[in-house]
Amino acid sequence: MVGKSVVTLDDLSTNQILELLHKAEYIDAHRKEVSHTCEGRVLATLFYEPSTRTRLSFETAMLRLGGKVIGFAGAQLASVTKGESISDTLKTVSNYVDVVAIRHPKEGAALVASRAASVPVINAGDGGHMHPTQTLADLATLQSRFGRITNLTVGLCGDLTFGRTVHSLIETLCRFGNVRFVLISPDELKTPQYVIDRINATPSCSYVEVRDLASVIGDLDVLYMTRVQKERFFNEDDYLRLRDTYILDEDKLSLAKPDMAVLHPLPRVNEIAVEVDDDPRAAYFEQVKNGMLMRMALESSVVGDELPGYEPLNPKEVQA
Amino acid sequence: MVGKSVVTLDDLSTNQILELLHKAEYIDAHRKEVSHTCEGRVLATLFYEPSTRTRLSFETAMLRLGGKVIGFAGAQLASVTKGESISDTLKTVSNYVDVVAIRHPKEGAALVASRAASVPVINAGDGGHMHPTQTLADLATLQSRFGRITNLTVGLCGDLTFGRTVHSLIETLCRFGNVRFVLISPDELKTPQYVIDRINATPSCSYVEVRDLASVIGDLDVLYMTRVQKERFFNEDDYLRLRDTYILDEDKLSLAKPDMAVLHPLPRVNEIAVEVDDDPRAAYFEQVKNGMLMRMALESSVVGDELPGYEPLNPKEVQA
Amino acid sequence: MVGKSVVTLDDLSTNQILELLHKAEYIDAHRKEVSHTCEGRVLATLFYEPSTRTRLSFETAMLRLGGKVIGFAGAQLASVTKGESISDTLKTVSNYVDVVAIRHPKEGAALVASRAASVPVINAGDGGHMHPTQTLADLATLQSRFGRITNLTVGLCGDLTFGRTVHSLIETLCRFGNVRFVLISPDELKTPQYVIDRINATPSCSYVEVRDLASVIGDLDVLYMTRVQKERFFNEDDYLRLRDTYILDEDKLSLAKPDMAVLHPLPRVNEIAVEVDDDPRAAYFEQVKNGMLMRMALESSVVGDELPGYEPLNPKEVQA
Repeated sequence: MVGKSVVTLDDLSTNQILELLHKAEYIDAHRKEVSHTCEGRVLATLFYEPSTRTRLSFETAMLRLGGKVIGFAGAQLASVTKGESISDTLKTVSNYVDVVAIRHPKEGAALVASRAASVPVINAGDGGHMHPTQTLADLATLQSRFGRITNLTVGLCGDLTFGRTVHSLIETLCRFGNVRFVLISPDELKTPQYVIDRINATPSCSYVEVRDLASVIGDLDVLYMTRVQKERFFNEDDYLRLRDTYILDEDKLSLAKPDMAVLHPLPRVNEIAVEVDDDPRAAYFEQVKNGMLMRMALESSVVGDELPGYEPLNPKEVQA
Repeated sequence: MVGKSVVTLDDLSTNQILELLHKAEYIDAHRKEVSHTCEGRVLATLFYEPSTRTRLSFETAMLRLGGKVIGFAGAQLASVTKGESISDTLKTVSNYVDVVAIRHPKEGAALVASRAASVPVINAGDGGHMHPTQTLADLATLQSRFGRITNLTVGLCGDLTFGRTVHSLIETLCRFGNVRFVLISPDELKTPQYVIDRINATPSCSYVEVRDLASVIGDLDVLYMTRVQKERFFNEDDYLRLRDTYILDEDKLSLAKPDMAVLHPLPRVNEIAVEVDDDPRAAYFEQVKNGMLMRMALESSVVGDELPGYEPLNPKEVQA
Repeated sequence: MVGKSVVTLDDLSTNQILELLHKAEYIDAHRKEVSHTCEGRVLATLFYEPSTRTRLSFETAMLRLGGKVIGFAGAQLASVTKGESISDTLKTVSNYVDVVAIRHPKEGAALVASRAASVPVINAGDGGHMHPTQTLADLATLQSRFGRITNLTVGLCGDLTFGRTVHSLIETLCRFGNVRFVLISPDELKTPQYVIDRINATPSCSYVEVRDLASVIGDLDVLYMTRVQKERFFNEDDYLRLRDTYILDEDKLSLAKPDMAVLHPLPRVNEIAVEVDDDPRAAYFEQVKNGMLMRMALESSVVGDELPGYEPLNPKEVQA
């Protein structure tokens, strides 16, 4: 993976993803041992739109590996532009750092960046497009809760039309196979056809589409909740009518399996009641931790620094 | 103190405050020895309103202990909100860091943060409410100038109504006792009754209220100047009339004791003439240094890292 | 150079500049060896106006020497001001850090800062005035391309009226002597008289002024391109008419010497066609690297940290 840019998850093979999951588990169990892995390295976080949560995760990941961080975020970017192209900025920053995490409002910006840079570029979100490390955080949460990312019944609930994290998770789980998807949404916010096509093209996967969370929650191993983002709607009435439709609370959760895992890409507004936070099934703050661990795994891998004491996975054994 | 959040100074016992003062002195004399104390630690500075001076002090403190820093400040916070609660942000950030310094415009925000976080939270100012590390900086300055924080005549001058640093300093000095307060302000900006009550409830402390600085300056061991903040006033005329009333210059200073210490929480506007800066009695830039040292003492204490070579104070001996 | 502030390049002797060039070359060849040089040091980047590219260069320089960084940039500065003077800010920050890089929109701000600070201050640009480390980056690029900064024919092209980097480079090259300047600009954007006077006052230097790039490009060792900044113009028509006049593309470049070096202070808009980037004569992204290396040389020198294994230059030998 050394030198590799990760613009979409298709840039990583399934074996590489399994390796990253294995590394993340190792890192979590060996925090002290890995804390000098990236000494002398510098990460640039180039955030052309603010996304504090994601930025802090990328930065903490590098700092906890012993590396350092430079960057800009949102409000500071005026000076970067002055008419300068993303390519020129990346050619410049390549002189400063060993790896870049870029966030940009325009689709395709991360790809352009990766082609101009002479160091690996990790996409931290470009437009409504791709955000591969969020999906890696999701996978790591399944891995840590179930010891596997296959043979699961995965419910996805809420805004399945605009939620890019949902689409990316479905597509990636299809690459590994053996998942039953339960797609829970109002008619107005159903899963796009290209995602359905992806499931249909995967013999070992299947799906159902339903409107009602309570009626299916008992079947699920995983419930992936999503935020209904106001900014995705064209008019406020639609937003207000649908916003509260799919709220998870202790009542609904009482119908679920005792080891179901509740995920959410965060931030939440009110789609998960705060009372759920103390339920052992709530996995969404663990997901934050797993996001950081996967970014540690990814950052150390693409700059080519070995984790001390780490033994690489033999993917054949794991998949057997 | 390990794991302790500090929302107000009441979260610290008098012995713990004395210990911090002792640690700050040790740190100042052993900069190099303590420079790896917090290696592997990460501080988050979550500044929901800008306060660059305070933020830089918290950050430098952690960096000079060998730790690292992530965070956001003012303009970058848009993305943090997206409707997210402070509690959720703290639950998220608790996965990244070992200690949090939070600044927020709303009173009570730091308390909410400390309850949600699984790591210690230090209040870096919430509304007009509390700013405990500023008071620690003030105490450290008395300690370094006089070798004690009791048996002093402490003048406080300027805006005694709105100046929260003044109220916090008076209340904290009352906990240690044996202080004579000289409260110097125009009638419009007198000390609030609840602070007066606090002094009255302390048998070993006393106060006088006066309007004129020059007439009392000769009695003082400490002169704590405050800024008359324009934003505290309801109309500009009141501000302009009072702003220049209590300016300290070399003329007034010539009436003071040769070892009086002039403190100021900074930033100043014109309430201390620049000519005073070179007077050995000027202690306000030392106060900045002491603020950093106290934050080093506090940050290392709450994360549970021992200062190499440091011998804990026996509080009984010190207070005897 | 220990403890020295650098407000303009006149603060450095020619021997000190040669020493910095020598150090930069050493640093580039010994990245790993120098990576702990400034351990325990802290740099403050005080950017009163945003200049992300410059800020990241100063910061990376300190990080790659093993030091740490605090600071603010543009949007965060509101709180710094609150009526506070630059002098007070510098007296405050002097308690936190070992060296300051300051950027400010007003001419003279860096000088004021350097007088108030008790640590070295490096000017990272003040108004249209001075930006000494940009010129150091330019010199380092000549040094690395030609092994010398004298005996060169240096073309400067584009906006020679407002481009302060051009004026600073000319003046500094005049201090070393033996340069032939070719000043290429439209009549509206000619070199100011005080710069011409500087060349005239240097017996070993000469200049010609021309309007046409293509007719002189074959004579040049160095072609320094500049951006025609929209904000320098009083009306848009003038800007549009002149903007595209002096664009360097492969056609023009085919007339140049095979070892000519193309420099540009960046960011570029369209004054150098992207096709030129892959030409070995393009040196403008190297210039970025050299800027970082010179800042490493300068930062380590003014804080007084020796580069491990570095042998100081004997200036007499070099100039002989």
